[in-house]
Amino acid sequence: MTSENTTTLPARGIPADPDAPVLELRSDISVDLVDHSASDLSVVRAARVSTVGDDAQYETKGDGYVAGLIDYLMKSRHGSPFEHNYLTFLITAPIFTVRHLMRHRTWSFNEESARYRELRPVFYVPDADRLLRQEGKPGHYTYVAGDGDDHQLVTEASAAVYAKAYQEYTGMLQAGIAREIARMVLPVATYSSVYATCNSRALMHFLSLRTARPDATYPSHPQREIEIVAEQMENSLQKLMPLTHAAYEAHGRVSP
Amino acid sequence: MTSENTTTLPARGIPADPDAPVLELRSDISVDLVDHSASDLSVVRAARVSTVGDDAQYETKGDGYVAGLIDYLMKSRHGSPFEHNYLTFLITAPIFTVRHLMRHRTWSFNEESARYRELRPVFYVPDADRLLRQEGKPGHYTYVAGDGDDHQLVTEASAAVYAKAYQEYTGMLQAGIAREIARMVLPVATYSSVYATCNSRALMHFLSLRTARPDATYPSHPQREIEIVAEQMENSLQKLMPLTHAAYEAHGRVSP
Amino acid sequence: MTSENTTTLPARGIPADPDAPVLELRSDISVDLVDHSASDLSVVRAARVSTVGDDAQYETKGDGYVAGLIDYLMKSRHGSPFEHNYLTFLITAPIFTVRHLMRHRTWSFNEESARYRELRPVFYVPDADRLLRQEGKPGHYTYVAGDGDDHQLVTEASAAVYAKAYQEYTGMLQAGIAREIARMVLPVATYSSVYATCNSRALMHFLSLRTARPDATYPSHPQREIEIVAEQMENSLQKLMPLTHAAYEAHGRVSP
Amino acid sequence: MTSENTTTLPARGIPADPDAPVLELRSDISVDLVDHSASDLSVVRAARVSTVGDDAQYETKGDGYVAGLIDYLMKSRHGSPFEHNYLTFLITAPIFTVRHLMRHRTWSFNEESARYRELRPVFYVPDADRLLRQEGKPGHYTYVAGDGDDHQLVTEASAAVYAKAYQEYTGMLQAGIAREIARMVLPVATYSSVYATCNSRALMHFLSLRTARPDATYPSHPQREIEIVAEQMENSLQKLMPLTHAAYEAHGRVSP
Repeated sequence: MTSENTTTLPARGIPADPDAPVLELRSDISVDLVDHSASDLSVVRAARVSTVGDDAQYETKGDGYVAGLIDYLMKSRHGSPFEHNYLTFLITAPIFTVRHLMRHRTWSFNEESARYRELRPVFYVPDADRLLRQEGKPGHYTYVAGDGDDHQLVTEASAAVYAKAYQEYTGMLQAGIAREIARMVLPVATYSSVYATCNSRALMHFLSLRTARPDATYPSHPQREIEIVAEQMENSLQKLMPLTHAAYEAHGRVSP
Repeated sequence: MTSENTTTLPARGIPADPDAPVLELRSDISVDLVDHSASDLSVVRAARVSTVGDDAQYETKGDGYVAGLIDYLMKSRHGSPFEHNYLTFLITAPIFTVRHLMRHRTWSFNEESARYRELRPVFYVPDADRLLRQEGKPGHYTYVAGDGDDHQLVTEASAAVYAKAYQEYTGMLQAGIAREIARMVLPVATYSSVYATCNSRALMHFLSLRTARPDATYPSHPQREIEIVAEQMENSLQKLMPLTHAAYEAHGRVSP
Repeated sequence: MTSENTTTLPARGIPADPDAPVLELRSDISVDLVDHSASDLSVVRAARVSTVGDDAQYETKGDGYVAGLIDYLMKSRHGSPFEHNYLTFLITAPIFTVRHLMRHRTWSFNEESARYRELRPVFYVPDADRLLRQEGKPGHYTYVAGDGDDHQLVTEASAAVYAKAYQEYTGMLQAGIAREIARMVLPVATYSSVYATCNSRALMHFLSLRTARPDATYPSHPQREIEIVAEQMENSLQKLMPLTHAAYEAHGRVSP
Repeated sequence: MTSENTTTLPARGIPADPDAPVLELRSDISVDLVDHSASDLSVVRAARVSTVGDDAQYETKGDGYVAGLIDYLMKSRHGSPFEHNYLTFLITAPIFTVRHLMRHRTWSFNEESARYRELRPVFYVPDADRLLRQEGKPGHYTYVAGDGDDHQLVTEASAAVYAKAYQEYTGMLQAGIAREIARMVLPVATYSSVYATCNSRALMHFLSLRTARPDATYPSHPQREIEIVAEQMENSLQKLMPLTHAAYEAHGRVSP
């Protein structure tokens, strides 16, 4: 996590106890690419059932050959050649966002456990750019800015809950209650960390559902926080597999 | 949910506001089998690539034939014949338990969404039988009863947080804040409902990880709340597919 | 299998051995729906996390409500509500077609085993309607009829191979060679039977890749034999879940 | 493929046509590890939700720490930490063996296509060490050597079929018949090549079913040819992740 969006606020309505843990309120959601083996050529190798030793022949045919084959595979939804690669991300995000991420069943996940570790008092609050009001009916929400006080209202209300929750959490732990019980009072805004591995096909499917792109063939309406995760992952895909990403964009952002 | 374990407690430390929503504190975790097509004979049909019309021949061979084939398939880990069936459950449980359930990627899930619906003030508290203290080191915890005050301590501490959280949640909603934002203050003890579908092979895998059975070949140490879910599902499996369940037990509770 | 397309041909070039097994040459590919629990209302129940008891409320809202919700889910690619159902098919098809079918990893399969059973001399030959010549380059093939002799050529050439293969297969079995070895000479046109279970979401994905529909958002170019399988399965889907099927058609035949 | 097991036999009963393609009969089944990112430390990182930067702390704790954690994860069937890695193999094997491989649905596959390419006349014959006779009843087969003539019998019988099949295959191609049709006469002993990617958890599951190890908790009875594939893959696993492999062995060869 970068520290620029981090703010530590005095929690509203909590008595000034010098021994109380200081809450850390953050608005950043971080995604780090911690391991990978992914390239456009790996798609060609898989589609041609060939090895690295054959790459030279594809390269001598020029970018046009590789780009053309990838474009054809994407358009025809020949998805399996896009699976022979690997990206591992470390995501730090609030639990409600982690829950969106972990719906995706073709991924591999490991999350830090509140059964084994005492959680730190780090909680999510939306930053000033987050649109806080929804309009329209379910399935067709749009989000708009409210008046100037909304951001302060949300920050104060949530900080007050976080302070109370963490106070009781640590109180129960100090009284000897098991971590897996005490943690039940913690809010879904509590930060968690997840190790997540996927291949580029699974990633494109995730991106199609978790980014809001009006130009997509099937536009989606994700919550902004999971979209922040998706955008960072898409940057990694675009850097590692630019031809694959270009073909994905060209054909409506539907995973092959 | 049955109502017998339900108690509505006055929340500690919350001023007596006659307009405040009444918290509902529950200790029950419910699992209802809402749809299914599952039988031991379906395993035989799949293994023999036969149809209902062939059942008579298996039945005339006596229970010994069907039981023997199922036992052989289980012992040899021929798992695919156990997949041609279907059980759908409706689970009502706290979010932290739903998160355990939804780690299982061979299942299908639909959960009620806090983005679309206002959540009701229903929260989990352990009942008097729940062992509240852990001993031993990570991976080898055992749970023990504490002294007589633990249950009261946990109930009061958690109720205090739930009341504060729900107060701020409804406050934000009334101020026009989007549901998907306001919900971030709600604790992981908030009840949620999930529609979950699996086949008997996926179910046996789930049971092997989410029940604590010292006699299993690979004993597991699940949190008690997800085990309550698993136990109810296992009752359904045992009723619908008694020979399959018996073979599962006989061979160490490892899914084929 | 219906018998109408079945023909038993004398194999070309095989001596008239009265003890030789008679080859059965077939052109039909059969798909029987042997079990299911699938309806449009199951999609609504899953999306609403509700039970059969709530169906009345959806029905009183009229077909428009159910159709509208399903259309919205399809368009937005909310796929999970389409998973809480179950269709089991028994497919009888040549091995090369079974191989296409069994690429689909969200399905459950059981196939008759040539390790355990002696295979019968039943082989596929294309019928007179099958277009036997391909034109164009890979990925853009079109199939056209040849001249009048093509069908006879293919039938005779393949029958000659089938006769020789089956003769040596049975010869090896009679000499005491293991079934799993002897079968290696059998052609990929040999018929096999498969038990296959999927849900409607997995089925729609299969249909999108295994039917050739120029009006699809992403047209596919399957081999005709697997398309014959797909068309029969699509008939089942359309009968059991007409609103789901209509929404699938309306939104370009891309599985949600 | 190494060439040491390769033999080119004159096909029995085929007239000496100088223009006829020479059949290549092989007994080797090759598995090449063409790409990977897999290590024991990746398991620890995933289980601890940590990054490469934290490796030093595990290493200073000595091999005992890493081995102990991996052993605990294996024993407790905490499987997900074993998924954050990647092995890609190129397998060259007869079609009947490829079919066994491609039953495994947590893998990614690309196989060369007989729709797009003309297949070469390369076919499998068992080598002299292959036990060719089965004894016992289904599910309990044992394989034994036959008398000295068995190997010659199988080689000649299969070569005769291969020659006839390939002759008619090329004949149909020369007459203009589509490749996807002509190939239907080719036997399941025809060699194919497959690109296959998995993670170590999926690989251990595959190994548990596709190796015959009497000391396994759940012994399996795979056909020898797929076991040859499995053995080569197991060598790769053992080299890349020795602690993981040791724990797998120690706990009965059941994938976590």
